[in-house]
Amino acid sequence: MKTGSTADIGRREFLGRAAWAVTAAAMGGAAKAAPAPGEASLVGFVAPKLEKIRVGVIGVGGRGSGAVRRLCKVPGVEVTAVCDLIEDRAKKGQDMVKKAGFREPKAFAGPEGYKRLCESGLVDAVHINTNWTSHAEIALYSLKCAIHTFVEVPGVRSIDEAWAVVETAEKNRCHCMMLSNCCYDEDAMTLINAAHAGILGELMHGESCYLHETRDRQGQAFLSREKIFSSLAALIDHTGMCYCVHPLAPISLAMNINRGDRLDYLVSVGSKGFAWQEFARRKFGPDAPVSKISFEANDFNTTTISTVNGKTIELRQCNNCPMPYTRFYSIYGFNGTIATQSRGLQPSMRVAIEKTLGGGVKSFLEGKELDAFKEKYRSALWKKTGDTAKKVGGHGGMDYLMDLRWSHCIRNGLPLDMSVYDFATWSSIFELSERSVRNRSQAQDIPDFTRGAWKTTPPGGLL
Amino acid sequence: MKTGSTADIGRREFLGRAAWAVTAAAMGGAAKAAPAPGEASLVGFVAPKLEKIRVGVIGVGGRGSGAVRRLCKVPGVEVTAVCDLIEDRAKKGQDMVKKAGFREPKAFAGPEGYKRLCESGLVDAVHINTNWTSHAEIALYSLKCAIHTFVEVPGVRSIDEAWAVVETAEKNRCHCMMLSNCCYDEDAMTLINAAHAGILGELMHGESCYLHETRDRQGQAFLSREKIFSSLAALIDHTGMCYCVHPLAPISLAMNINRGDRLDYLVSVGSKGFAWQEFARRKFGPDAPVSKISFEANDFNTTTISTVNGKTIELRQCNNCPMPYTRFYSIYGFNGTIATQSRGLQPSMRVAIEKTLGGGVKSFLEGKELDAFKEKYRSALWKKTGDTAKKVGGHGGMDYLMDLRWSHCIRNGLPLDMSVYDFATWSSIFELSERSVRNRSQAQDIPDFTRGAWKTTPPGGLL
Repeated sequence: MKTGSTADIGRREFLGRAAWAVTAAAMGGAAKAAPAPGEASLVGFVAPKLEKIRVGVIGVGGRGSGAVRRLCKVPGVEVTAVCDLIEDRAKKGQDMVKKAGFREPKAFAGPEGYKRLCESGLVDAVHINTNWTSHAEIALYSLKCAIHTFVEVPGVRSIDEAWAVVETAEKNRCHCMMLSNCCYDEDAMTLINAAHAGILGELMHGESCYLHETRDRQGQAFLSREKIFSSLAALIDHTGMCYCVHPLAPISLAMNINRGDRLDYLVSVGSKGFAWQEFARRKFGPDAPVSKISFEANDFNTTTISTVNGKTIELRQCNNCPMPYTRFYSIYGFNGTIATQSRGLQPSMRVAIEKTLGGGVKSFLEGKELDAFKEKYRSALWKKTGDTAKKVGGHGGMDYLMDLRWSHCIRNGLPLDMSVYDFATWSSIFELSERSVRNRSQAQDIPDFTRGAWKTTPPGGLL
Repeated sequence: MKTGSTADIGRREFLGRAAWAVTAAAMGGAAKAAPAPGEASLVGFVAPKLEKIRVGVIGVGGRGSGAVRRLCKVPGVEVTAVCDLIEDRAKKGQDMVKKAGFREPKAFAGPEGYKRLCESGLVDAVHINTNWTSHAEIALYSLKCAIHTFVEVPGVRSIDEAWAVVETAEKNRCHCMMLSNCCYDEDAMTLINAAHAGILGELMHGESCYLHETRDRQGQAFLSREKIFSSLAALIDHTGMCYCVHPLAPISLAMNINRGDRLDYLVSVGSKGFAWQEFARRKFGPDAPVSKISFEANDFNTTTISTVNGKTIELRQCNNCPMPYTRFYSIYGFNGTIATQSRGLQPSMRVAIEKTLGGGVKSFLEGKELDAFKEKYRSALWKKTGDTAKKVGGHGGMDYLMDLRWSHCIRNGLPLDMSVYDFATWSSIFELSERSVRNRSQAQDIPDFTRGAWKTTPPGGLL
């Protein structure tokens, strides 16, 4: 796997250890050590086939009602229960399902509604769309009930919660998957397929950004501290990279993280947070209560990760830079580079492949060459159901394909594209990047949630 | 140099490096403390006017002969001396100047030629284009002789050398400027002007990349360790970001670094270095001596910097990713974003400016709007002399404008665009990023070479 000389590797490993001692000593409370493997690993886990999957949607707000709408269009899926803190919202969910031509699902409401839903015997899987702060509590409960658990980004928010999710899923032999819709972005899937096909040769580096101005969208939220979106609440109370899944997950799959390689450590650097409060002051006046909320969050965060195989991943997040929504993925290998499309900033996918060693690459593929490349590595999922997906919609269809895909895997006795170990790894960046930012960007070790299984897990995945 | 048995040398290397790494780590990677200010600061320094500037070009290889050719076309400049290790090269320089219609410059050769040049009384300024390894030795000598000193990127390579340059320039009251041609890139100057005009509001973050596949260009260099380019030698013996000036300098000026803000610390993360050796193996066979050279350098390096005012700067360098040359600058502020053009990857400058608070920005400026923006913030230097610059050439004209600009400032009694403090700050990234990479990306403090003067130095600059 390593192409460097043996001396290189020896030196690198030594330095790794030497420096680790220093880092750990300085860290004052390293990440919790891996608990002893209790139950068997869930790597490659295949759950008993289900012909029809009965799904309970928990949280029927903006994102949740979209999920209900989508799931009603996914073959072999029936929304048999809905749940929300607010009864009216639960009812709204019920009506959506009925209008879609299904039996009325049972509605659960109130702070403990999700528990009754999990205990109702009505669902094989839950689809959690609640406020970020309740993801862990709800997911751990559904896993304890041995119910397949699908959780919206960013999953859970601490290392301890991530370990609890891993242990509970292993113990109860069920799936826990991050609803990382960006892994089903058409360009991202093409990039992943091309990387897995080896056309770039050995990979060196991957990078991505998630630049999404949300201040105005969240403008209303400013009117009350209670009504604000999860993501805004996180920006008030946390710093670091609170929303890493959109940039990280597709790169993580392309680079076979937890499948022959794993994330080793990260450093996170953030700009001071002033733009949210300044926005509130200008929009609502300096005396508005909201203008007195100070935000912990960096305005712009850059988090860089090193893997144990010596690859690097660089991620950028900004939620208050006034520019068109920008999210794209770039991956660099010995033989070439691929960068996905991004509205405005990068109007079409960029692909550079070296044809002869040292021949250099004078230009990115254009026209027919680019089309041929995209067709060759295009996702089978998009080929087959892309048109339907676009009709159903949900972030251009990727939300639908995501739900179509996990349900297809469960219905056909296949492992899922993303494991509980991916779920835990991606979730852990929330706490680790915050720790790094709060400690002068000190390196933070990323736990091996696979407990060594990454070494023997085969590369590849998705399709 | 490691051309024997890689295993043996790797081991020796490995023990040496390890010891060094641990020491550096124990030191917390702290840079040498600022020496007490000896002479007065050179902030805003104006040298006595010169009607004609007599320049000695030291190093007349590839880059140096380009400099001779250029300088012969710069008004008010005369190349009165040339110097090279190799006599034939010095003679070639002489001939170029004569052919350009000037008096024959005096030629100096041999390892001590530069000393005799500096002592000859023939030059007011030296233009250093030698191998990186001799920049410091030559620059310190010319500064001791009170000669204005212009040094090719990446300047000097250690913190101690950078401090010595600052102290010697201060003591001898002369300029020492980095020949950072990228600061005179047309788009970069437009970005800097727009940022200084405040159209982006308070800035949050700047970023840049320098992705320049040079393996094939350096292919010949592989044939002998002696003949290799400076940059390749650095890749063999060093890691981290050995060539930060192209990405950093324009962002540094746009963000007023050393002019009201300063670089606080950096973290540097690099991918393992395998692509150079693998390239040699495939190109020259596994038994070729060159294929036994192991490279210290990261294949891909990401260095992130935090400033004392809480802004961030993110830099990427890769010299072996097969793709078209890519270098561009992005800067993010409260009111908008600017990203300069980059061949292929970003075919035209991207500008997003928010017109009404919270109104959002749906698209980047296009067509007439973009043209108007570019015209409004276009560099006066490009307006006035852009056409001449393009004719003369040298990286599309920016080399010529750089030389035109510093000579114009000296001839007219103006401060230079880039100070000795910028020179030292940018130079210091070489050592600091290497320390960080060798110590698990541990944060490294960046010295304040201005010794506090950054607080009172006014923002702005260039034109």
